Amino acid sequence: MNKSVDLSKYQIRTDLAIDYVEDKNKLKGVKYKTNIINDITVTNVELDKDNDLGKKKGKYITLEFEDVTDYNNANKLRKTLTLVLKKMLKIKSDSFGLVVGLGNDKSTPDSLGPLVVNDIIVTNHLYMLGELSSNYKRLAAINPGVMGETGIETSDIIESIGQKINPDYLIVIDSLASKSIERLNKTIQITDTGIQPGSGIGNKRKEISKDTLGIPVIAIGVPTVVDAAVIVSDTISFIYKNYAFNKQYMKNPKSKLTFNNVNFLNKKIKENKKEKQDLLGMIGTLSDEELQMFIYEVLNPIGYNLMVTPKEIDFIIHKLSNIISTSINNSIHNIDRDR
Amino acid sequence: MNKSVDLSKYQIRTDLAIDYVEDKNKLKGVKYKTNIINDITVTNVELDKDNDLGKKKGKYITLEFEDVTDYNNANKLRKTLTLVLKKMLKIKSDSFGLVVGLGNDKSTPDSLGPLVVNDIIVTNHLYMLGELSSNYKRLAAINPGVMGETGIETSDIIESIGQKINPDYLIVIDSLASKSIERLNKTIQITDTGIQPGSGIGNKRKEISKDTLGIPVIAIGVPTVVDAAVIVSDTISFIYKNYAFNKQYMKNPKSKLTFNNVNFLNKKIKENKKEKQDLLGMIGTLSDEELQMFIYEVLNPIGYNLMVTPKEIDFIIHKLSNIISTSINNSIHNIDRDR
Amino acid sequence: MNKSVDLSKYQIRTDLAIDYVEDKNKLKGVKYKTNIINDITVTNVELDKDNDLGKKKGKYITLEFEDVTDYNNANKLRKTLTLVLKKMLKIKSDSFGLVVGLGNDKSTPDSLGPLVVNDIIVTNHLYMLGELSSNYKRLAAINPGVMGETGIETSDIIESIGQKINPDYLIVIDSLASKSIERLNKTIQITDTGIQPGSGIGNKRKEISKDTLGIPVIAIGVPTVVDAAVIVSDTISFIYKNYAFNKQYMKNPKSKLTFNNVNFLNKKIKENKKEKQDLLGMIGTLSDEELQMFIYEVLNPIGYNLMVTPKEIDFIIHKLSNIISTSINNSIHNIDRDR
Amino acid sequence: MNKSVDLSKYQIRTDLAIDYVEDKNKLKGVKYKTNIINDITVTNVELDKDNDLGKKKGKYITLEFEDVTDYNNANKLRKTLTLVLKKMLKIKSDSFGLVVGLGNDKSTPDSLGPLVVNDIIVTNHLYMLGELSSNYKRLAAINPGVMGETGIETSDIIESIGQKINPDYLIVIDSLASKSIERLNKTIQITDTGIQPGSGIGNKRKEISKDTLGIPVIAIGVPTVVDAAVIVSDTISFIYKNYAFNKQYMKNPKSKLTFNNVNFLNKKIKENKKEKQDLLGMIGTLSDEELQMFIYEVLNPIGYNLMVTPKEIDFIIHKLSNIISTSINNSIHNIDRDR
Repeated sequence: MNKSVDLSKYQIRTDLAIDYVEDKNKLKGVKYKTNIINDITVTNVELDKDNDLGKKKGKYITLEFEDVTDYNNANKLRKTLTLVLKKMLKIKSDSFGLVVGLGNDKSTPDSLGPLVVNDIIVTNHLYMLGELSSNYKRLAAINPGVMGETGIETSDIIESIGQKINPDYLIVIDSLASKSIERLNKTIQITDTGIQPGSGIGNKRKEISKDTLGIPVIAIGVPTVVDAAVIVSDTISFIYKNYAFNKQYMKNPKSKLTFNNVNFLNKKIKENKKEKQDLLGMIGTLSDEELQMFIYEVLNPIGYNLMVTPKEIDFIIHKLSNIISTSINNSIHNIDRDR
Repeated sequence: MNKSVDLSKYQIRTDLAIDYVEDKNKLKGVKYKTNIINDITVTNVELDKDNDLGKKKGKYITLEFEDVTDYNNANKLRKTLTLVLKKMLKIKSDSFGLVVGLGNDKSTPDSLGPLVVNDIIVTNHLYMLGELSSNYKRLAAINPGVMGETGIETSDIIESIGQKINPDYLIVIDSLASKSIERLNKTIQITDTGIQPGSGIGNKRKEISKDTLGIPVIAIGVPTVVDAAVIVSDTISFIYKNYAFNKQYMKNPKSKLTFNNVNFLNKKIKENKKEKQDLLGMIGTLSDEELQMFIYEVLNPIGYNLMVTPKEIDFIIHKLSNIISTSINNSIHNIDRDR
Repeated sequence: MNKSVDLSKYQIRTDLAIDYVEDKNKLKGVKYKTNIINDITVTNVELDKDNDLGKKKGKYITLEFEDVTDYNNANKLRKTLTLVLKKMLKIKSDSFGLVVGLGNDKSTPDSLGPLVVNDIIVTNHLYMLGELSSNYKRLAAINPGVMGETGIETSDIIESIGQKINPDYLIVIDSLASKSIERLNKTIQITDTGIQPGSGIGNKRKEISKDTLGIPVIAIGVPTVVDAAVIVSDTISFIYKNYAFNKQYMKNPKSKLTFNNVNFLNKKIKENKKEKQDLLGMIGTLSDEELQMFIYEVLNPIGYNLMVTPKEIDFIIHKLSNIISTSINNSIHNIDRDR
Repeated sequence: MNKSVDLSKYQIRTDLAIDYVEDKNKLKGVKYKTNIINDITVTNVELDKDNDLGKKKGKYITLEFEDVTDYNNANKLRKTLTLVLKKMLKIKSDSFGLVVGLGNDKSTPDSLGPLVVNDIIVTNHLYMLGELSSNYKRLAAINPGVMGETGIETSDIIESIGQKINPDYLIVIDSLASKSIERLNKTIQITDTGIQPGSGIGNKRKEISKDTLGIPVIAIGVPTVVDAAVIVSDTISFIYKNYAFNKQYMKNPKSKLTFNNVNFLNKKIKENKKEKQDLLGMIGTLSDEELQMFIYEVLNPIGYNLMVTPKEIDFIIHKLSNIISTSINNSIHNIDRDR
């Protein structure tokens, strides 16, 4: 591979800490714990300052769930998310919060943040008038838009409004690009480390965190798109995984390329380098990271900015935004209807 | 009428200077000139510091036009508005503008500002990267939302972003409440005096002007709703106007209350006090302003926040926003397609 | 008044049977009963063939409720409406229903029908494949659009699809024009008489009923707009009602036109003809119907097709459509989550 | 590959005749002609009854164009499409047309048909009243919805309305799934063969054609999504194409996997079987069709219904629908503004 190319720009970021914590026991500075709450898998990752992951110190809570277009799944997620947010936020009665929806309301998979903000119960204007009832906390909310539509760096908009109204904490909602098609719309991450540069669908954001703003920043993110390069490299990996799985688990595969509708994705397989190269040629000699970067370069001249989403994305995004906005409202204000 | 009531809160505001300039010759500090450009009536009102109208010193240009859902009318308006804006803005090649859309994108008649901003060609982010082509000027655009949805005073959002990015001038687009159903969606006012307190549909805005922000503020406003009280008082006035018109112009009215589908609204009539009281009773003895305030009081206990719009308002607002955004883009950037 | 004018075209229709049943005891062929269910006033009117109202034989159930943007009001209405629909529909397990949303999804106050249909759980295609689970009934749903957008008479679309798929019953949802601003978005009528000509916002519809289609037609209607003429005539009536109320109830009105923020609208007043004419002149001699027709004629030359709605209509319509679609789904399918 | 799997269900359909006509000279029953009109490549394919492609007899006109979000490209496309439609439709002055928008207006890439129909100038209701001006032809338009939302087979809705109103011809607009990422939103096909089973995004439609309806059916289709499997197989093909290109055209490639930002996609390359297998392993021995089917099988167990679209799809679809609706209006009615 031509090393003169700037590979960093092709690197697919993920801010899902859970993606890095596969072999949790061997890592230093990493605490890891998983619970099941209302059938939702809740994973707490706590990173110390000098952790082996090289990621920012802080808490990362991940909720993994099934298809939210199912009423029962949605219900369970809402209850669990409310619990998790209550614990993460621990709002004092006189705290003033600002909720920020990152993303573009005109691009369906990137519209999660703006949609959530539209349903937040804001009260700051009532507080200013002395008309705030005791069941509600002081809350404001903004949709700063995206740089392509405003011409302004999004973090500048947030910072300047923050300096004007002086909130005590920030909640930021964002659509994320996923490194894996299996996580798409099926994972929520809540972290107290804020938004890191390069995360999110737009890929060029500046940091929004306690370090840059001086107040706690809770980020709520959902992976809603997969870059086209990811699906290609995932599929190439699957090809080998499936082939190896068949060879290792199946007795008499009619053909080495047979598929038998068995979900091989969750099975552990041992990789055999020679075998992988036979199947995939020189492509098979690349690491996962090298493969993805390589595919980026191949797709680059086509000039298309492609994304992969489920066909029913419009419906899923509305469900997710409804769950998240209700959970935020319930966990901050004293109006939880699921008691 | 009970003078202990605070009548000021019932006063229907209009920021259309043209509404005040009926008897232009008698007014001091008021310059007034009307042209017809592409079949559009363009009225220039220039107010000196101590003008008889008691309004802010500055230029007020009003465009009066016919139904914009007609393709030809829309075309003429776009051309004329582009001309007027070019003259009003006189953008230097290195000027940096910020376009602000006031209003609520979820309420159709109040969505004009946000819709216009969505179609503004922003370039500030390209300028910051040194990638701005010479045909384009430096421009940013924001939709600050409304206080009921953000919890934040709108002028605070504009002011704080303004202080961060330091534009040279502001363009503010707003839906206005009209004092007259005849002006509804058929008038655009451009003024260099900015947004005055109490104008707009929301009715509670703070001033946004050169005085408060320190840079020129061009406000573009269109009356898109009429308060319910206005239509009642307008109709009561029409009743008399029509009656008097028939008496003065028609030879043999079959009945004093006859209507003959003649548009009496543009005719001059002489008012006869006795006659008006016969027709309308004590109501007929009130001045137009007293009548409107009186109706506000009558409608007040019903507790409804009613507005009057044309039935096809969704369609009209989209046409108007398209005309205004195209005119702004054409008059600032070097991309006018109507040369 | 000039009797040569065709007054019928100015007549403001209401299909709310409740508007006609003020003096219930004196009417023949009219059964009338009111219950309070979950704080919702439910009025059952049953009309015999030869009823004094001159309206179609059948059941008319009216729900009167408070502002649905309040969570508790919405909850109560949903529960009560589900109960009422269950009783009205009495769906057999093998019945096949077609839900029809009348109205224009691009005009907010007329979009109720289309919005409800978007959230109906349709199952007919699963039934055709033999894949329908036993908790669900067979259901299809269409939005036929409005004649101005399709060029086709709406009843022709419904009739032709009906003939093709052969449903056992029809449910039709429609936005209505109200005769009264007090009912706006605060009344739902369910009737087994279908849709009558001239009702609805569009005003020119053909009958859609058992008589025309041969199957039961349940119509669900909500008044969402008031014609501009209504608010004028209502206000003129209020003016006198308030004046008379003040004279009769208040001891020392400072002025005959004083208002004291007392809600006079629900008080009974005795009308005094002489007094009314003093206050309102010749206008005061007209009956309510004559006044409305007169105002139509006055507003006619202005050429504007105006409607009156609450300023928050976009939000209210979404709430109402959510309540109605959930109630229909709950009352037909076996999925009621409020048991 | 396991031949017991039903491969047909994995077959990616394309209704773009142009995809089949690469080696035009060798095919029987196929006439083929390409023109450039206003910089748009217009390809006419005419298929005889017994053509070598095994496709339906008829005309297929394909317009290939550049990014329509560019004003000039959009302008040229609109003019050329108007010309092509005029020729294809040859509307007699008394012909009655019905325009049908296939697809789901709630799923962005599938919303092209409904969006186009929303902007068609319908006149049939005016014709019925004898009020149609001579500049306009008789036209109606419907959005029949999708089966998942109506519970009714879409072709049944079209057929039943057709039988009721008796149009002389049908125009059907549809979003297509593309077999190639390069065609995405950059091709329009107009054909007089109607809609064939299995085409379109939904994939399960019945035929809508002269054979089934008895009147001419003109179908206008745009590929707006690519199935996720396509992008994987396209990329794998590109990998080899690029590798071979570099070897054949570049003198000193620093590495065999180097990319040099040269658009290799339009270059002819000679395929070398041995070389391809070295690069891609056993995967390299599969034909393009086998590769796509194979990838379908790999992606199948993941259970996701994924699609690939450009990130700016919302904006592109609105531009395309505007161009197509304007072209239809201009080519049918006598209102062409581009003369």
